[in-house]
Amino acid sequence: MIRHEQRVIFGDTDQMGVVYYANYLRYFEAARGTFMRAHSMSYAEVEASGMAWPVIEAHVKYHRPARYDDLLGVELALSELRGASLRFSYTVRRDDQVLADGYTEHACIGRDGRAVRFPPALRETLQRALAV
Amino acid sequence: MIRHEQRVIFGDTDQMGVVYYANYLRYFEAARGTFMRAHSMSYAEVEASGMAWPVIEAHVKYHRPARYDDLLGVELALSELRGASLRFSYTVRRDDQVLADGYTEHACIGRDGRAVRFPPALRETLQRALAV
Amino acid sequence: MIRHEQRVIFGDTDQMGVVYYANYLRYFEAARGTFMRAHSMSYAEVEASGMAWPVIEAHVKYHRPARYDDLLGVELALSELRGASLRFSYTVRRDDQVLADGYTEHACIGRDGRAVRFPPALRETLQRALAV
Amino acid sequence: MIRHEQRVIFGDTDQMGVVYYANYLRYFEAARGTFMRAHSMSYAEVEASGMAWPVIEAHVKYHRPARYDDLLGVELALSELRGASLRFSYTVRRDDQVLADGYTEHACIGRDGRAVRFPPALRETLQRALAV
Repeated sequence: MIRHEQRVIFGDTDQMGVVYYANYLRYFEAARGTFMRAHSMSYAEVEASGMAWPVIEAHVKYHRPARYDDLLGVELALSELRGASLRFSYTVRRDDQVLADGYTEHACIGRDGRAVRFPPALRETLQRALAV
Repeated sequence: MIRHEQRVIFGDTDQMGVVYYANYLRYFEAARGTFMRAHSMSYAEVEASGMAWPVIEAHVKYHRPARYDDLLGVELALSELRGASLRFSYTVRRDDQVLADGYTEHACIGRDGRAVRFPPALRETLQRALAV
Repeated sequence: MIRHEQRVIFGDTDQMGVVYYANYLRYFEAARGTFMRAHSMSYAEVEASGMAWPVIEAHVKYHRPARYDDLLGVELALSELRGASLRFSYTVRRDDQVLADGYTEHACIGRDGRAVRFPPALRETLQRALAV
Repeated sequence: MIRHEQRVIFGDTDQMGVVYYANYLRYFEAARGTFMRAHSMSYAEVEASGMAWPVIEAHVKYHRPARYDDLLGVELALSELRGASLRFSYTVRRDDQVLADGYTEHACIGRDGRAVRFPPALRETLQRALAV
């Protein structure tokens, strides 16, 4: 599990005075970047290898609103790892309160857009991340 | 069912050359605005009455990427109507192809943030929208 | 001069209850897309020819706030055309009121990132757009 | 002068493979938040006092593109302080390279939307920030 810190800016809020619902998916993505760096992977490398991990499904449950200037903790866990797809799960907290949770499902595809299996070295790294 | 047209701009895409996944939730919201206008409701009025319909859950399945300059058709249906909550379902198409689908679940809350039942006049309008 | 219509969504607003200042640059870009289509140009073609027109300068003056659900008129004029750069000027109106105005300056660059002159056919089209 | 660190996410880029031009204004705003915290001011307090500092003008020059995963340094200086308005100036760097610079001009307004002078205590804090 890794923890990504996210400061809420004005541009993330809407006129209801809370973070706009789509922006949680931006926070999730920022957490994936932190996950990659934490495991010494770089998405640039993933792409250079001809792979991509597009999001094929996203889900968010909104429990309590996040607000301007909040320092959010976005916890990410690699929760499922299959041959050619994986799932990240997220919990967004402010202090001890859970504000939102959700997941994103990613396919692993090659240059031609078809599903490909994760290469062995990468799979090992992901396997280790899964255990944590 | 209503149909909202959405033109993809550069700012909606990311460096994979496709629409960034969070932006589908923006398209869904734009379709809700079109739905409100189509049923002669205004979210401004909803808010003026002291109610709000915050999103409590969002789900998207991404089937095929949308691209710059695409003219998307976002179909919205009010698919469930309960005492103090409702669900909108969405399908995003480019011509005949389904690019994405999903739903958003909304609570109906009052000024104090607690669930309130839809007022009768509004419920009637929503009931009619549900039938279509 | 072309006119692009832009509906304000919740996701465009911030907690001050008005359109977030960065989003005017999104509206400007949407108007450029409308300009391209109006002149039977497609930015996809521009790119296919190996050119790109990156923004090298942007300026906005904010006079009055735009709000949720406003139907804005974004007027765009090609105001300057030079050998390898051009300027678009914008005025954002709601009914008769000017809410904002500004400009964007674009370089014309080739695949290697260096300035290139607009090709003759394109220059002619732009010249005609300039006159209007 | 304060320095704000900004990590570029996928959602900030566009299909040209670089940060979308509007997002620099988001980065500028994030830097303003860091400035406020650095000077023990909170924009929430500014608002609670009935004031607001809306952006009345924004300007950006784009020198070199920022890219996915870049860790940008956004330098902010309070460069001008007048009776009822102020200007922040920004430089966005990646390592030693200047990628962009610009400014935002802000009015100080009261609850009725009219210009008000900065209150003495706030003015003093700003005066000190100006000197640095």
